Amino acid sequence: MPVEPMPHYLRIRDQLAQDIANTSLSQRLPAERELAERFCCTRVTLREALQQLETEGLLYRENRRGWFVSPPRIRYNPTRTTGFMDYVEAQGRVPRTEVLAAERRAAGPALGRRMGLDEEAEVFHILRRRWVDERPVMLEEITLDASWCPGLLDHGLDTSLTRVLREALGLSLSRSELAMHSTALVAARATPLQLTPGSPGLYVERASYVEDGRLVEWDQEFWRSDALEIVIDARYPD
Amino acid sequence: MPVEPMPHYLRIRDQLAQDIANTSLSQRLPAERELAERFCCTRVTLREALQQLETEGLLYRENRRGWFVSPPRIRYNPTRTTGFMDYVEAQGRVPRTEVLAAERRAAGPALGRRMGLDEEAEVFHILRRRWVDERPVMLEEITLDASWCPGLLDHGLDTSLTRVLREALGLSLSRSELAMHSTALVAARATPLQLTPGSPGLYVERASYVEDGRLVEWDQEFWRSDALEIVIDARYPD
Repeated sequence: MPVEPMPHYLRIRDQLAQDIANTSLSQRLPAERELAERFCCTRVTLREALQQLETEGLLYRENRRGWFVSPPRIRYNPTRTTGFMDYVEAQGRVPRTEVLAAERRAAGPALGRRMGLDEEAEVFHILRRRWVDERPVMLEEITLDASWCPGLLDHGLDTSLTRVLREALGLSLSRSELAMHSTALVAARATPLQLTPGSPGLYVERASYVEDGRLVEWDQEFWRSDALEIVIDARYPD
Repeated sequence: MPVEPMPHYLRIRDQLAQDIANTSLSQRLPAERELAERFCCTRVTLREALQQLETEGLLYRENRRGWFVSPPRIRYNPTRTTGFMDYVEAQGRVPRTEVLAAERRAAGPALGRRMGLDEEAEVFHILRRRWVDERPVMLEEITLDASWCPGLLDHGLDTSLTRVLREALGLSLSRSELAMHSTALVAARATPLQLTPGSPGLYVERASYVEDGRLVEWDQEFWRSDALEIVIDARYPD
């Protein structure tokens, strides 16, 4: 079977992506005219390649100043249980957690079903935005069974929640079930991440259990697609 | 800090998503007028909620026939090494693998660097499309070090590649490194998946090694965002 020829702009995209990976491109790209000459293509084809890399999150554009290489993605291994503040810092970046809202409320029917609680059961609902190097990268909605961690809201939540639970309340989780898929971010989630509504994002759902198997925390994370790389190792059975 | 009120269409979205999860909605949704009455909202607000669920892949629309619940996502645990044909079938779905192209070529500079091969080294390049229940869900570009598996192209590749390598050639992998992120699918990848260019998708890159640590296979997968759920377990240290 013949191989369908790859469109020219995609070959240019691959070469540029390679140059970015090799950091053989300066953080600010040369002018479009210069790049078009280098790749012997039209400005139209070049712009197709640049826009493709923009949607992939490898490049971003600044009005009038041209094209720039995006900062590297934060690498996150979900099989490890290191928290955001730790794995971002370990990669030489600056993490920040901003609390947007924190309240006590009734679980309600939908969440009650999801967490195995009565509709009237009290939960803590915490909305946070997380930053890397002064760029907002993730919105998270955290729900906790209030009967498990009463008094949580008396503590500062602009840090690692796991650490607050462990160090201030002496509580620790046993295991988490994660589910993730790519999605398009709705306005209410895209705007706080400085994105246009409909931009691609990664949705991560985390259900966390204590030793006796009780579900005590249920989180939803919405990530900018250009901020995160999920990395995982797999071993084949002998 | 006050909780920003959630837009009405998002609350309707959450209720509908819950109904879908509970399969308390028939596969075909009631008429928009009926739904708008049930949620005491305008048709405009209802449509915002439905379109949000469409971008998330929970619903799809058929011209003139109305709204339908999307088939459930295939659940895939990347820490296990079960192949597509097996984990799709294990979920009571019908997997199919279609070979679009298979050729022998020189690695070239970019791929050579990535795989640690000379530019002139021979690789097998295989392009496949994978289906679930007669819906195309994933495009994959597989590159293999030809010196590791000479004669591979003499075998049928419309099945599990791992099985062909093991059973026909007596070759097996030791471990894989996976990296994944959400992205927007370019036309060349969206169209074969029956999507509009720019639709969100999941990009999965897999580098596979043999026992002695040599990288022999490098794959790129492009998934429809509504077809796949990545599921992972994490245990917290005691």
